Amino acid sequence: MGEFDLIARYFARPGPTAGATVALGIGDDCAVLTPAPGHQWLVSTDMLVEGRHFLSTVSPRRLGHKALAVNLSDLAASGGSPRVCFLSLALPKVDEAFLAGFSEGLFALADAHGVVLAGGDTTAGPLNINITIMGEVPHGQALLRSGARVDDDLWVSGLLGDARLALEVFRGTVSLPGEAFDAVRQAMELPQPRVALGRALRGLASSAIDVSDGLAGDLGHILHRSQVGARLHLADLPRSSVLGGMPEDLQRLCLLTGGDDYELVFTAAAQDRSRVLEAAREAATPVYRIGRIEREPGLRVVDGEGRLLDLTLQSFDHFKS
Amino acid sequence: MGEFDLIARYFARPGPTAGATVALGIGDDCAVLTPAPGHQWLVSTDMLVEGRHFLSTVSPRRLGHKALAVNLSDLAASGGSPRVCFLSLALPKVDEAFLAGFSEGLFALADAHGVVLAGGDTTAGPLNINITIMGEVPHGQALLRSGARVDDDLWVSGLLGDARLALEVFRGTVSLPGEAFDAVRQAMELPQPRVALGRALRGLASSAIDVSDGLAGDLGHILHRSQVGARLHLADLPRSSVLGGMPEDLQRLCLLTGGDDYELVFTAAAQDRSRVLEAAREAATPVYRIGRIEREPGLRVVDGEGRLLDLTLQSFDHFKS
Repeated sequence: MGEFDLIARYFARPGPTAGATVALGIGDDCAVLTPAPGHQWLVSTDMLVEGRHFLSTVSPRRLGHKALAVNLSDLAASGGSPRVCFLSLALPKVDEAFLAGFSEGLFALADAHGVVLAGGDTTAGPLNINITIMGEVPHGQALLRSGARVDDDLWVSGLLGDARLALEVFRGTVSLPGEAFDAVRQAMELPQPRVALGRALRGLASSAIDVSDGLAGDLGHILHRSQVGARLHLADLPRSSVLGGMPEDLQRLCLLTGGDDYELVFTAAAQDRSRVLEAAREAATPVYRIGRIEREPGLRVVDGEGRLLDLTLQSFDHFKS
Repeated sequence: MGEFDLIARYFARPGPTAGATVALGIGDDCAVLTPAPGHQWLVSTDMLVEGRHFLSTVSPRRLGHKALAVNLSDLAASGGSPRVCFLSLALPKVDEAFLAGFSEGLFALADAHGVVLAGGDTTAGPLNINITIMGEVPHGQALLRSGARVDDDLWVSGLLGDARLALEVFRGTVSLPGEAFDAVRQAMELPQPRVALGRALRGLASSAIDVSDGLAGDLGHILHRSQVGARLHLADLPRSSVLGGMPEDLQRLCLLTGGDDYELVFTAAAQDRSRVLEAAREAATPVYRIGRIEREPGLRVVDGEGRLLDLTLQSFDHFKS
């Protein structure tokens, strides 16, 4: 099978490739997009490499899901409504089973969020997946990292740390019974981007970021860009019952520096507490209050008794770990 | 050096990262773009892999140029005005000499075309470069592959075949004296995207495509999408004096199936001949009339005496050649 057959068979779909947003999709030099009046575009791009962002053991279907999910998560953190994506795929060879599974997983998630695959590129080469996602937001309403204010509440969605726990099992440093492993593995391989929550937080959250490199590091970006500090309550960090049953040190590692969580961490004025809970209910996404923004720069993590923990934290860095 | 230092040192520039189009560039989850009223967005993405799209012998500076040039070429073929790009880069290791050269080459071309690098991603992994480019075009004026009409003139810009000739030298099937080799190597490594020409052809060309996989194959996409055929005059195909001095068979191979030309092939009504020449003059880009669109499907190549050539042509396919 050649390049054009491959695109035609697995990635070009006659159905939803033209509509209000996409005037022209796959099949020309460029896709043509018509912006909605009064809106801005949000754009993000993520490159996934085997051994860094996924393991060789992942199923193609789950990989297709995850490749799009990590991009949707960036869009969610900005409060965007997803519209289109562009897929670049380098493959060592044309592997039809891989392509069938990968495209199924990708399109299932794309369809769930109304995203159209409007273009891309395929080539032979070491396995590499790059997706660029575009979404829209009403003018001036994008959620940024830079808006956190002193005394804002600090919130996080969903559960933290399961993906890292799964990685530790794959690395052989932890062992888990089959069912527990399946659960944390699903967190690692099938993250659910918090698109509905991000949208519901427009005009409400003062700042937001998605947790992809670990809570401490990603929260650090908010603090840095907002020129504030934060106090985080370790005991309030939401965790699964599987992770909650692990040794204290491992829990901390997974919760604070885990990576691959794809939850949203965000700030909002304390007076908006009930509005945040209402937005979360609308978005059918659990949220938890985990701390507070402070004037003093830096991140302080306290235990259940309010004691400051001495933590040297390292968030995930693709050229360091 | 870590991922964030790398981005700060080589890719984040304080100057032109915010303006009319880019409300927010590098440094948040998404870039925020403000569309110009009455315009559509054109988007294209290209992935470059060593050994497929460039050789290990290319200088980092030229590679940075080429990675953006191939994307700008897609935009040129659609008649777009370039605005922003997004760079994903997988590198085996942090190589500062590579990064310095690569980013210099990329930014030199970006600046020449007013393109802002508004975001991206970096990771460790086998060398892979993916750029997504976005440009704008007045609503409804994008040049498409599908508009060629019977009796339209067939045009091409610049010179064809030199990049392929350079590749044959690298492959050892041809040898050239130093100066001639430098010239064709420059065509391969420093292609000049025809952005000004594409823009000048808005409302004038009935169809267009950029020649990246070889003239015959890329023209074939216009014929297929426009449901027409074409007659091409081999003797009229523009070539450098270096290529013109090569054996006839090699010339044909390079001119018709070369690849990596990044010239525009386009069609326009015969009555618009002088307008096309005027547009080319405005864009300071030479153009050549090389044939005509015909009703009968397929591509017919004729020699200087008008004799039909029997050619079995194969355009470049990343999973075949």
